[in-house]
Amino acid sequence: MTAQPITDPALRSTLLDRVAFNADGLITAVAQDHATGEVLMLAWMNRAALDETLATGRVCYFSRSRKSLWRKGERSGQVQTLVDARLDCDGDAVLLLVEQKGVACHTGRRTCFYTALRPEGAVELMPPEIAPDVLYGA
Amino acid sequence: MTAQPITDPALRSTLLDRVAFNADGLITAVAQDHATGEVLMLAWMNRAALDETLATGRVCYFSRSRKSLWRKGERSGQVQTLVDARLDCDGDAVLLLVEQKGVACHTGRRTCFYTALRPEGAVELMPPEIAPDVLYGA
Repeated sequence: MTAQPITDPALRSTLLDRVAFNADGLITAVAQDHATGEVLMLAWMNRAALDETLATGRVCYFSRSRKSLWRKGERSGQVQTLVDARLDCDGDAVLLLVEQKGVACHTGRRTCFYTALRPEGAVELMPPEIAPDVLYGA
Repeated sequence: MTAQPITDPALRSTLLDRVAFNADGLITAVAQDHATGEVLMLAWMNRAALDETLATGRVCYFSRSRKSLWRKGERSGQVQTLVDARLDCDGDAVLLLVEQKGVACHTGRRTCFYTALRPEGAVELMPPEIAPDVLYGA
């Protein structure tokens, strides 16, 4: 079950006009595993990134550090296939239901949210499944 | 199942020192229903909001429009009780597993993410469960 790509540029443009990009032209994007419900990561999208994601069904973010489109998994192979994109009530955040290949986190963990803040301190909930140098090359 | 409040201010301070607040002193917070996995809303926290949340077990955000602490549900009664707080790998986003009383969205819907972007257009996935004027007074 993956999203049907939205092939009509005019429809994508109409949908993108509903999005309230911030002063930097960005919205927050939350990726969630469509099957397990696990929240995988949080990143950012500009209009071009969300347009590409809707057009291709492959998740593309905007890297604030590199200031360029970031096709998730282009180096690591850990791509995200879109299942559904859902805008929030004020249009400045998008929830991406995805099919995650492998792991979402650059540390090699399934999710980036692996550090729990608890009365016993900061608890690491899971070890890496893959070494980062395997993901990205040594 | 709710979080044990972290009563020790020194421990909270140590945990908060792991958080990478941005230039405005904020991090992104994603609230997820701990039982169903539904992503409910996205909001912001400053250090004081996260400190209060960890200390009390009741979720408190920072309102960027009002520039003040926003104790979720203080007007509507739709409070969020913390079950677990999880920091992401680079420390600039926090996932809050919560027990949501009633609805999370100010529109009266369970979640803020109710508008799907699909080939057939923008699809509203659910109606309000409660009228906003019941939540907030007419």
